[in-house]
Amino acid sequence: MTGAPTDIERIMEPDAVAVVGASTDETKRGHQAIVTLQEGGYDGDIYPVNPNAEEIRGLDVYPAVSAIPGRVDLALIVTPAHVVPGVLEDCAETDLAGAVVVAVGFGEAGEDGEKLEAEIVSLAREHGIRLIGPNTSGMINVHRGLNLVGADTVPEGGLALLCQSGNMAISLFTEAATREGVGFSHYVGVGNEADLQFHEYLPFLDADPETDAIVCYVEGMSDGRAFLQAARDVVPDTPIVVLKSGRSDVGKRSASSHTGSLAGDAAVTDAVLEQAGVVSVERSDELLSVANALSSLPRADGPNVAILADGGGHATLAADACTERGLSIPRLTDQTQARLRAVLPDAASVVNPVDVAGGTDDDQSVFVDCAAAIVADPNVDALMLTGLFGGYGVRFAEQYTEVEIEAARELASLAAEHDTPLVVQSAYEGFETEPHAVLRERGIPVVESLDVATASLSALATYGDRVAAADQSSDFRLPAATTAGDTLAETIGHGRTQLSEFEAKRALADDGFPVTPFDLATSADEAAALVADIDGPAAMKVVSPDIVHKSDAGGVALDVQADEAAATYDDLCSAAAGYDPDASLDGVLVSPMRDAGVELIVGVVDDDQFGPVVMCGLGGVFVEVLEDVAFRALPLTEADARAMLDDIGAQELLDGARGNPPVDRDAVMDLLVAVSSFVRSNPSVAELDLNPVFADADGVEIVDAAITLDRRPRQHTENEEAESAAPSQGETDD
Amino acid sequence: MTGAPTDIERIMEPDAVAVVGASTDETKRGHQAIVTLQEGGYDGDIYPVNPNAEEIRGLDVYPAVSAIPGRVDLALIVTPAHVVPGVLEDCAETDLAGAVVVAVGFGEAGEDGEKLEAEIVSLAREHGIRLIGPNTSGMINVHRGLNLVGADTVPEGGLALLCQSGNMAISLFTEAATREGVGFSHYVGVGNEADLQFHEYLPFLDADPETDAIVCYVEGMSDGRAFLQAARDVVPDTPIVVLKSGRSDVGKRSASSHTGSLAGDAAVTDAVLEQAGVVSVERSDELLSVANALSSLPRADGPNVAILADGGGHATLAADACTERGLSIPRLTDQTQARLRAVLPDAASVVNPVDVAGGTDDDQSVFVDCAAAIVADPNVDALMLTGLFGGYGVRFAEQYTEVEIEAARELASLAAEHDTPLVVQSAYEGFETEPHAVLRERGIPVVESLDVATASLSALATYGDRVAAADQSSDFRLPAATTAGDTLAETIGHGRTQLSEFEAKRALADDGFPVTPFDLATSADEAAALVADIDGPAAMKVVSPDIVHKSDAGGVALDVQADEAAATYDDLCSAAAGYDPDASLDGVLVSPMRDAGVELIVGVVDDDQFGPVVMCGLGGVFVEVLEDVAFRALPLTEADARAMLDDIGAQELLDGARGNPPVDRDAVMDLLVAVSSFVRSNPSVAELDLNPVFADADGVEIVDAAITLDRRPRQHTENEEAESAAPSQGETDD
Repeated sequence: MTGAPTDIERIMEPDAVAVVGASTDETKRGHQAIVTLQEGGYDGDIYPVNPNAEEIRGLDVYPAVSAIPGRVDLALIVTPAHVVPGVLEDCAETDLAGAVVVAVGFGEAGEDGEKLEAEIVSLAREHGIRLIGPNTSGMINVHRGLNLVGADTVPEGGLALLCQSGNMAISLFTEAATREGVGFSHYVGVGNEADLQFHEYLPFLDADPETDAIVCYVEGMSDGRAFLQAARDVVPDTPIVVLKSGRSDVGKRSASSHTGSLAGDAAVTDAVLEQAGVVSVERSDELLSVANALSSLPRADGPNVAILADGGGHATLAADACTERGLSIPRLTDQTQARLRAVLPDAASVVNPVDVAGGTDDDQSVFVDCAAAIVADPNVDALMLTGLFGGYGVRFAEQYTEVEIEAARELASLAAEHDTPLVVQSAYEGFETEPHAVLRERGIPVVESLDVATASLSALATYGDRVAAADQSSDFRLPAATTAGDTLAETIGHGRTQLSEFEAKRALADDGFPVTPFDLATSADEAAALVADIDGPAAMKVVSPDIVHKSDAGGVALDVQADEAAATYDDLCSAAAGYDPDASLDGVLVSPMRDAGVELIVGVVDDDQFGPVVMCGLGGVFVEVLEDVAFRALPLTEADARAMLDDIGAQELLDGARGNPPVDRDAVMDLLVAVSSFVRSNPSVAELDLNPVFADADGVEIVDAAITLDRRPRQHTENEEAESAAPSQGETDD
Repeated sequence: MTGAPTDIERIMEPDAVAVVGASTDETKRGHQAIVTLQEGGYDGDIYPVNPNAEEIRGLDVYPAVSAIPGRVDLALIVTPAHVVPGVLEDCAETDLAGAVVVAVGFGEAGEDGEKLEAEIVSLAREHGIRLIGPNTSGMINVHRGLNLVGADTVPEGGLALLCQSGNMAISLFTEAATREGVGFSHYVGVGNEADLQFHEYLPFLDADPETDAIVCYVEGMSDGRAFLQAARDVVPDTPIVVLKSGRSDVGKRSASSHTGSLAGDAAVTDAVLEQAGVVSVERSDELLSVANALSSLPRADGPNVAILADGGGHATLAADACTERGLSIPRLTDQTQARLRAVLPDAASVVNPVDVAGGTDDDQSVFVDCAAAIVADPNVDALMLTGLFGGYGVRFAEQYTEVEIEAARELASLAAEHDTPLVVQSAYEGFETEPHAVLRERGIPVVESLDVATASLSALATYGDRVAAADQSSDFRLPAATTAGDTLAETIGHGRTQLSEFEAKRALADDGFPVTPFDLATSADEAAALVADIDGPAAMKVVSPDIVHKSDAGGVALDVQADEAAATYDDLCSAAAGYDPDASLDGVLVSPMRDAGVELIVGVVDDDQFGPVVMCGLGGVFVEVLEDVAFRALPLTEADARAMLDDIGAQELLDGARGNPPVDRDAVMDLLVAVSSFVRSNPSVAELDLNPVFADADGVEIVDAAITLDRRPRQHTENEEAESAAPSQGETDD
């Protein structure tokens, strides 16, 4: 890093730490923190702070941070909550960069706690101090021996952990302690995110030479959109893996009682994280292994996995697991098959999965011959070796261990030469054998579970995909809500939040959207004339700013013939008046009836965590019953729109199931991008629903539209111009 | 066991074993087998057989099995394949109960191998010898020290393993070796199932006092229906867990090249195993843990799980994982919540998940107080303790270990007293702590993975469900194909395999099925008269035994009005003649048009492994695109039919989505049971398709029907009366 260190750098790599609330009582956190720092080998200065002590473990104690003679980068504050404001006040005149606030009793603890949290944030901003927490277990710089948590066993390695649960951090630390080759560079318990938020750590960790991958355990982000922006920039160099809890309704209940943060809808979260290039993991028992694979292996250029197994059972199960996770098991080329046949017995299967059928029983170097053939195959993006490798010496005869060690070396070299990710699954993983150690030293993960091996390969393929698409996807930046040009709010809204179907369609049609032809009849005669002009029957719908659910009001008539139009006009108006005598009626909307083609729904919703997101899915029962919809955050690029269409489950319907021609995907993509632009330039739009949109081989047509305005500023709007006015984003200078 | 031992008992618990192919060469399987038997502590007689040796490891060698003076129960044959027939011939006059045939080169190895396999099966039957294998790694009776495999480390325990892959067996043995508290009673490598099949071991293992649960790794069963029959009887006492590989198309490719067995469709397999009360597992890394939980814990009476966590992260993730797997997280009663509040700090969450919020930091006996309140709650069927339990002594202070040990004892006692399954997830599982050992000794599983803990609880709930429903579900027995009363083949088929729609509907209507009214017009005038009699428009379809796809032939007209009927008749006949000039025309089927209601499809297919199964699902795009269908094996009970309906994914459509009234589920169930009876009493029916069936609040109506006959006997028919004529089923006498 060049230039003066930023606040985040000083916080994450401090040269001097104050422990506020340091204690002579050995059972107290304020004592243990000193012990851990000293015994962890931290090479910076340690300043205990306590007005009532003189010396702790050989260190001079200071009555206040302001009394410390040298410059302090970071303060660990272990005092109770109510003392924290005073501590921050005391630091007003110091050059303190940051403070870790451990205490609970803030935002997660009701109204009084929220007030206290607002107070410390305000004080911190005033005095130029960034806060980690409150309600955090602390932070760790593993390589510096700077452990502000007191977790005993944190193995050193390349994973940085941003975590919203102290016990989850302990779980991951203990899991790593029992897994060879997995360890951590940094840990931050982000706590309540009162000041420093998830996204602000990302640029530092990206630049950190000790960090190879970033692992996040997230209950709810206070600024999800900022995370997307930061992640997008970091991902091409440093993979990010996220485990998001609170996926279920019950999980959400628990998450919100825990951190007081909002837990967003899992489908939205998964989709927008994917859009930003982040790899999501759903099982806590796969998080560490997947992150480890991403940190040490090259990414996969595609989904094509070759399986090399020393038994039919593993071959079959591996193929099942890969297929289940969307990976492909391509047929190997004839040339590869010939090379395999040359080294394997007749009974072997060489198509893929490759089953050596006893061919490695007496000589495990045959694995290397097979792998050499496989990694050279142009159809193969990644290799899984599955079965007993590394355990032949344990299982069969000791002299095999040497053969396996040499084979392990050569397997690792082959994988490196060809830049092919290799994951080894072995039943003997738990035996900590030498061949496995050789593989791990060379960055090849060895795992016991076939499913975890598959999850790792799947993550490598996903990551490869996302990096390849990184520069084509959204930058997640939106103009401020005050941007000029939001004509909807100015010219139509007039204080109303719900536009009529006529107003919504007119706004969209004026903007060039493909809306079914429509016109407003304000009398029975006008209605008759309009329907007469249509070639075929008409749809007629009452238009009233006061009636949202037109069908419920009896305000919709379909398949209206020209000679019925006048009477229908009167019927619809009477029905509307009967439904709500006070409703003002603008008239009746007249449109030609359309054939459905494929029914789609396109919409925009304002997500609690991530701000405005576009939704697209199959309409009718598919959206109502199956919730077969895709999400992406605004603003949408063409690549985002394409990815959304690919995310829809029932692809067959888009491709032309039941004898229909395939839907014009380009037209749907254009519509999605246009919707994104429309909402971007009309920030007053809180919700937009195009439902249904009819799609066929010739294009798309919007058949019904609803727009809800909201004149409050968007919660998650980012002002492109005004960014520098926001609190320091902790960006590095280089 | 009482009475003379059966063949299976003599094979699984042999008092004398011959090793045919015993060798003085220490590197040979025929030598290692003797070593393993001697060193394993086998207490029976061991007879090496080899015409060219006199003594091996202190044992007399016999030139042939027939030359052994004492009675031999089991022969392990390790000779090459071509020698096996001679060995069996030699045993003709002996009282040998069974033989384990290790060699490959039989049914899995092409035509010659198939012939050789048929020959040894024929010889074995002739001489009253049952065969395990061929192509098997062998068998093990762990408690007797009878290891015919040579796997070194097979921990002793309550799991019996039936396995179709030697390496999968090794994987499970090594996995168990690194997990405390998990072990095996018996292992059988079933190999090619040439003689003894999966199902024949079940009654023995059910009666075996050493076996608490049966674990099966299956690539393909040669008689799946017999397995269903046997499993149904065993499951109420002894849980069965199955991992079925070859789920994906690629997996199937690999499985079939491995064992030559048929890999059935995963959806059918899962469904019929569920019907028989078997618990299916999809991930190989969950098989052992799930089986272990089933073997040592009481079953859960329902899906309601209480989560007791010492951190919000674990609480939330556990809730997510449970919800994902269909378990419920019920609200605890007010009384329980009050009891929890009395022992936990204010910040604790006591609704469920229960988060102790630091309440156990200084005193882990608080876990016991919480658990006591929870297991007494009537809303709770099972308890998961998740977080750090058993690791407080490691993590915080040594003196906690004693507290945790006592807490572990009390937790186990509480669970036992209340017959409540308890699974403990702990980040410290890998540390092999004393509190964990105490739990395991008392049958409480301790696992590291939250997801595996959840899988275990889910299996206990599934198992509880299935045992509760066991006596209400199918017995899987079908009459022989020759049963009288199959009027379809006799009176309609006349050598044809495809019935016309008219014939199919008439057969169904005659049997009392609710078929849309229909009549056959054989002239334009007749058609006009029939349509005129209908109140509303008609559907008209050409009837020809030679035209299966009527729509393709232009042979279907819908919404036909009375005045169009005569012309339509002529049009349909011309179209059919144009489509296939040689087709014979029976006339035109006339039916009233119907409103769809909810469109269903009901059918019967003959599954390769399990014989005839009924299918039911939502019609139209749901079956074509989403494959949202359920399966159950014939004959169906009412409970089976109900379970099928519950298996359909889009339940909302049955319950009345989009403003429709709910479907009459009883009518659908009646239809499914009737279909089962119809096919049962007409064994010539190879396939049956009722598509669509319209269902609404008033009942169901069959709108189209297709029946395919097959005069070959059904592959999987079991003759209820003729069972005793089948080869010995290995049933125990008690």
